[in-house]
Amino acid sequence: MKTETKIKICRPRAEIFEAFVDPVKIGNFWFSSSSNRWEEGKTITLRYDEYDAEGEIQILNVIENEKIVYEWGREEGEPHLVTITLHEEDPSTTVVEVTEDGFADNDSELIAKLVDNKEGWVYALTCLKGYLEFGVNRLRAALVK
Amino acid sequence: MKTETKIKICRPRAEIFEAFVDPVKIGNFWFSSSSNRWEEGKTITLRYDEYDAEGEIQILNVIENEKIVYEWGREEGEPHLVTITLHEEDPSTTVVEVTEDGFADNDSELIAKLVDNKEGWVYALTCLKGYLEFGVNRLRAALVK
Repeated sequence: MKTETKIKICRPRAEIFEAFVDPVKIGNFWFSSSSNRWEEGKTITLRYDEYDAEGEIQILNVIENEKIVYEWGREEGEPHLVTITLHEEDPSTTVVEVTEDGFADNDSELIAKLVDNKEGWVYALTCLKGYLEFGVNRLRAALVK
Repeated sequence: MKTETKIKICRPRAEIFEAFVDPVKIGNFWFSSSSNRWEEGKTITLRYDEYDAEGEIQILNVIENEKIVYEWGREEGEPHLVTITLHEEDPSTTVVEVTEDGFADNDSELIAKLVDNKEGWVYALTCLKGYLEFGVNRLRAALVK
């Protein structure tokens, strides 16, 4: 099973692409830091200082300004595939679509995992909108678990 | 079953309470409009102009600056109980906790409903944070279904 989240952001898709792949920018809306620029074939370490958490993702496919595909969780035995697609509505408006696939149907924690995952994506994408449209970079890291 | 969502907002809880109950404020982060001030015993019509949607909620309990409990969906045969609790961390910081209860365990659409509900609450509360902390009132109504 998978989750799917879509939000409209009134910015050109190149800006949205850069917000994800440029390690200088990610801390404005999502993780605290990213070890390197996201490029096809690279393994990236993402840190979330506020939760003292760290994880690796493998960048499988990048189409500049259009699409990013990465995997995480293979070592933990449940690989998840994340696809970020940037749909240009017009030159200044983009629909950002994120799907995350790989949730096992027979997992007793399936519902909690899907709901948590949805929480994370809605939050990150709303923070991204706040950052790119309004220059607000302190919406992140406020969810209480 | 229920969903539970919590976010920290760096504002006094009285401001957060007013953002929910004052019909002038709701359009800055959530619905387009609210028919009346939220008070115990009242039925309120909420409109979402962007989706041409409208619904009624019944305000069951209000403790000023602390708690709001309302119900919706009874006429549709699935009453949901929403509880908004404002936890004061210090005079200028509040954790907003929202639980929504009433999802039927045997509903074939249970997962989709829980995930959609989580999406709605994470989005509304992040928009509320953007509005109250940063004065940004145009984060709302951008999710694409």
